[in-house]
Amino acid sequence: MTTDLARLRERAPLTHCLTNAVVQNFTANVLLAAGAAPAMVPAVEEAGDFARIADALLVNVGTLTAPQAEAMRVAVAAAREAHTPWVLDPVAVGALMLRTGLALELLGQGPVIVRGNPSEILALAGEAGGGRGVDSTAAAEEAVGAARELAQRTGAVVAVSGVVDHVTDGRTVRTVEGGDVLLTKVTGAGCALGALMAAFCAVSATPLDAAVAASQLVARAAERAAATARGPGSFAVALLDELAAEAS
Amino acid sequence: MTTDLARLRERAPLTHCLTNAVVQNFTANVLLAAGAAPAMVPAVEEAGDFARIADALLVNVGTLTAPQAEAMRVAVAAAREAHTPWVLDPVAVGALMLRTGLALELLGQGPVIVRGNPSEILALAGEAGGGRGVDSTAAAEEAVGAARELAQRTGAVVAVSGVVDHVTDGRTVRTVEGGDVLLTKVTGAGCALGALMAAFCAVSATPLDAAVAASQLVARAAERAAATARGPGSFAVALLDELAAEAS
Amino acid sequence: MTTDLARLRERAPLTHCLTNAVVQNFTANVLLAAGAAPAMVPAVEEAGDFARIADALLVNVGTLTAPQAEAMRVAVAAAREAHTPWVLDPVAVGALMLRTGLALELLGQGPVIVRGNPSEILALAGEAGGGRGVDSTAAAEEAVGAARELAQRTGAVVAVSGVVDHVTDGRTVRTVEGGDVLLTKVTGAGCALGALMAAFCAVSATPLDAAVAASQLVARAAERAAATARGPGSFAVALLDELAAEAS
Repeated sequence: MTTDLARLRERAPLTHCLTNAVVQNFTANVLLAAGAAPAMVPAVEEAGDFARIADALLVNVGTLTAPQAEAMRVAVAAAREAHTPWVLDPVAVGALMLRTGLALELLGQGPVIVRGNPSEILALAGEAGGGRGVDSTAAAEEAVGAARELAQRTGAVVAVSGVVDHVTDGRTVRTVEGGDVLLTKVTGAGCALGALMAAFCAVSATPLDAAVAASQLVARAAERAAATARGPGSFAVALLDELAAEAS
Repeated sequence: MTTDLARLRERAPLTHCLTNAVVQNFTANVLLAAGAAPAMVPAVEEAGDFARIADALLVNVGTLTAPQAEAMRVAVAAAREAHTPWVLDPVAVGALMLRTGLALELLGQGPVIVRGNPSEILALAGEAGGGRGVDSTAAAEEAVGAARELAQRTGAVVAVSGVVDHVTDGRTVRTVEGGDVLLTKVTGAGCALGALMAAFCAVSATPLDAAVAASQLVARAAERAAATARGPGSFAVALLDELAAEAS
Repeated sequence: MTTDLARLRERAPLTHCLTNAVVQNFTANVLLAAGAAPAMVPAVEEAGDFARIADALLVNVGTLTAPQAEAMRVAVAAAREAHTPWVLDPVAVGALMLRTGLALELLGQGPVIVRGNPSEILALAGEAGGGRGVDSTAAAEEAVGAARELAQRTGAVVAVSGVVDHVTDGRTVRTVEGGDVLLTKVTGAGCALGALMAAFCAVSATPLDAAVAASQLVARAAERAAATARGPGSFAVALLDELAAEAS
């Protein structure tokens, strides 16, 4: 059986990331380690053209600015036209207006996956006021109902990251266990997971499969990385090694 | 006795970093390793709201642009209103006009700590024309007088980073020894120290204590990291591990 | 005999990098490990002044935006006036209009070295439509003729990166073997090579020597790093260690 990971490595999907400034380097290295081909093309003059060429698009609003919002609108519109699957990561939506407005706007533009922590998913679903910065103040289990509703309303698969990841297309809910608490001590681990979900969308049968495949890959690699790591620094390094070493 | 580091880990202060583009990732990972909660919210539309929510704010002008300067002004004004302590890191002030003008302007807005290398502190005090890029051309000892005067004039604690760190509130001068020369071979080590000082402001009794606690934490972690490192790459990784492992 | 690397370490050339957002941190760490002094000054208000102070300038269009393009124009004009050598890295030129237009414009402004992958060099020479994102779809050997023509036409040394690097001043072609395939699994390895070429321009006899010295340094360090690495994460860390350990 050819796994999604084997297909990812064979095809090396060109994954266009309009993502936050803190995590760009780590996101690119995670995608490379897994077998995808990352690229970041942030200019409003180019982001649309590149979204048409790319195999998948990630939109992560973590360090949103007004010019970036414009590039994201253009990229998402081009992705829709070109049938490029795109993933929305609504980092820290809720209390902050620019990103919350953009995330709600883009939610109506057909993301195939929405990935967030419980607070972000609750905020996007209109059920709570968001977390504390980039951290969630709710457990994944609390957000599953909101995730299911959000999926039904928007047609997107919704992935809630936590100690156990929950992924739902509005009908079924799939869970992914594993991972390690050190993932919360490396900035951008969740953001990189969103990027991997986008990459898998280019090779998986369904967005649900893509979200689960990405979550499983990170969970397994994180478990093995944690087994040898001495702390968050060596864990991040080992995570990249293990993503590349993961048997497909 | 509860140490400042123990309090940092217990409270995990939300530390808003408006910092330079080169060091954002490392800064976030240093804060996470130490036990703080980093967040970067750069948009002028959001930076003020977030400065009100955050427990501390860092303003680092290392890769300043005009839009970022505007966001920094808004964030600092909001921090003042909300009594959020904020730290100024005047990277490479002196020869470069945009950042020098902004740093002098913000110096009047009540930073609780100003952290820089000797050349930067001398330039900010009006005593010299700055260093060579981000590197200091003066030794820490040469800048202690200027630091003391600057502290007396502004009310801020002034921290001068060097082989020996000097921290002064204008009356007393405290020194922190240790560290390792490899800190100068990892980009952003000084910038991350400024971010840690901001985080400690949320838990330490005084800004002087916060600056000293952050300097001591980095000095100790760097010494242990250097003992096992093979070069600057493995040193940076080990530094994160040691920041997390440091006994509180 | 004093090698170029020995001179680099002695002089620590101040290397101004206007480079892409994904690789800024890694680029700075590579320059520091090798012995150069990196600095990134992106504001249009400061980029020219700093290009006059710096010993070398890198212009890398990997995540170009319109404001960055303006800063690059100002920096290049100042570098010309001040006789600061500057290097052009035309990342992903070809299909994307903003960067292609700027790269062609700046090509007429006297870069001493142009470094790219085969697809980028072919696109810049007007011979092909570019690669697939940041990846080349052509082998280095296919681009050598175009590189030679481009060098003759512009007066710049042209460096084509690949399994074997080819560097030409339009007359002779020098090749650098070695390196490791893991270089393609670390984002920004090629971009950091371009930055090293800029740094070497400040100490080498000719731009051809500078490009070859930088390529040899990375090739040797990568070989040794690969010998101990467990994957792309530990390879990137070891590469920095080996750059610093390289005998000069």
